[in-house]
Amino acid sequence: MRTILIIGIGAGDPGQLTLAAADALRQADVFFLLDKGAEKHDLIALRQDLLAQFARADHRLVEVRDPERDRTADGYVTAVDDWRRERADLLESAIAEQLADGGCGAFLVWGDPALYDSTIAVVEEIRSRGTVAVEHRVIPGVSSIATLAARHRIGLNRVGRPFLVTTGRRIATGLPHDVDDIVVMLDAHCAFTRYTDQELDIFWGAYLGTPDEILVSGPLAEVAPRIVHERQAARERKGWIMDTYLLRRRAG
Amino acid sequence: MRTILIIGIGAGDPGQLTLAAADALRQADVFFLLDKGAEKHDLIALRQDLLAQFARADHRLVEVRDPERDRTADGYVTAVDDWRRERADLLESAIAEQLADGGCGAFLVWGDPALYDSTIAVVEEIRSRGTVAVEHRVIPGVSSIATLAARHRIGLNRVGRPFLVTTGRRIATGLPHDVDDIVVMLDAHCAFTRYTDQELDIFWGAYLGTPDEILVSGPLAEVAPRIVHERQAARERKGWIMDTYLLRRRAG
Repeated sequence: MRTILIIGIGAGDPGQLTLAAADALRQADVFFLLDKGAEKHDLIALRQDLLAQFARADHRLVEVRDPERDRTADGYVTAVDDWRRERADLLESAIAEQLADGGCGAFLVWGDPALYDSTIAVVEEIRSRGTVAVEHRVIPGVSSIATLAARHRIGLNRVGRPFLVTTGRRIATGLPHDVDDIVVMLDAHCAFTRYTDQELDIFWGAYLGTPDEILVSGPLAEVAPRIVHERQAARERKGWIMDTYLLRRRAG
Repeated sequence: MRTILIIGIGAGDPGQLTLAAADALRQADVFFLLDKGAEKHDLIALRQDLLAQFARADHRLVEVRDPERDRTADGYVTAVDDWRRERADLLESAIAEQLADGGCGAFLVWGDPALYDSTIAVVEEIRSRGTVAVEHRVIPGVSSIATLAARHRIGLNRVGRPFLVTTGRRIATGLPHDVDDIVVMLDAHCAFTRYTDQELDIFWGAYLGTPDEILVSGPLAEVAPRIVHERQAARERKGWIMDTYLLRRRAG
């Protein structure tokens, strides 16, 4: 039996590491890193700093080249499923070959592993196949959403009310009508610009928790152009961007 | 100017404290504790352990008796508003009297301060009144929701799909139709029992992150009676309960 730890390491600020996550880093013999290509080298450097500070001196790194995702596919979910299966194949081989029986391997996940991340599902798939015997544990982390709210010093919900967490792709076809607080992740196309005619406030953040953090908030109609501009400029400057935001309908 | 730190301390497991939260505990001169009555003495003990381990030896505790909340009021939001204002009055006096100018005070919040907690709003109200000059900072924490997902080893969302975070009070009048993953907080009346005729799975957890943690998951129709029973028994045994759950519609 091999143990796999799926460790939430916070949104990008090393101070967001929990004590349990630091312990987990010390337990692991092998860290499996998914190489997502050159564009996020800052994040790789941040992760290396965490390992240098908390992992054991004799830890090993195993880099697994992430399979290419077919982003042109019509069926988005099917494309993700295929990609996840291919990823599971690659990681299963890596675990079998690189982690000794009885050993402890770890995956580091930015933010919280329960939010728009496939690591839990991939490890679950490897476990369910039964070819390599693994048991896994998830160490929760501080999410980018919690960091967004903290930096803007707001709650995600208003008193007694719900909030929705969704994707840019989803809101591009319309905002939900029955919920007035909407957290948007994975929005590469600034879908919020479609709703500047509505009575909305936006709380936006990029590179949350890192020295490059950018925060913008205000009435959507007023600040949307600035967000689009800041986002574009930052993306060009750094080569990548990770951002998220809350849309809040004004009480009418 | 006085500094107020609003510190997320995780869902109940001391290991969920972040390094930044531990630093913040060391910075504070005074901790303002809201006495919520006898029923949650376990949590008070847990909080005292954290202070003993991380706060400075010369820290001071200031207990503020929480105002009684009018739970019978027809207007729930109004009742909460009144209560919050009264709470702001009490805390404003406590800060003015107990925290020196230039000093650092702290509030400890279970889970993450952005989720169904009024501390940020109360401190914002004190700040906006301007009677006592305060600046405040929020240190995000690991939420009970992240802990629920981690312990069940699931994601909160499914691939590319949204999830809703809402309250027991809200779902008692019906489940939303356009979202299939629903996290429910503050459900004292087991509202999930209304939906055992639907194709739902439930992932339930109580006392998350603590030694008393209870987890139940499965098809709602099958496990709902067990959750009701476990919840009742635990509540009688301990005198209080904090629980949360995810309802997930089965793919049809």
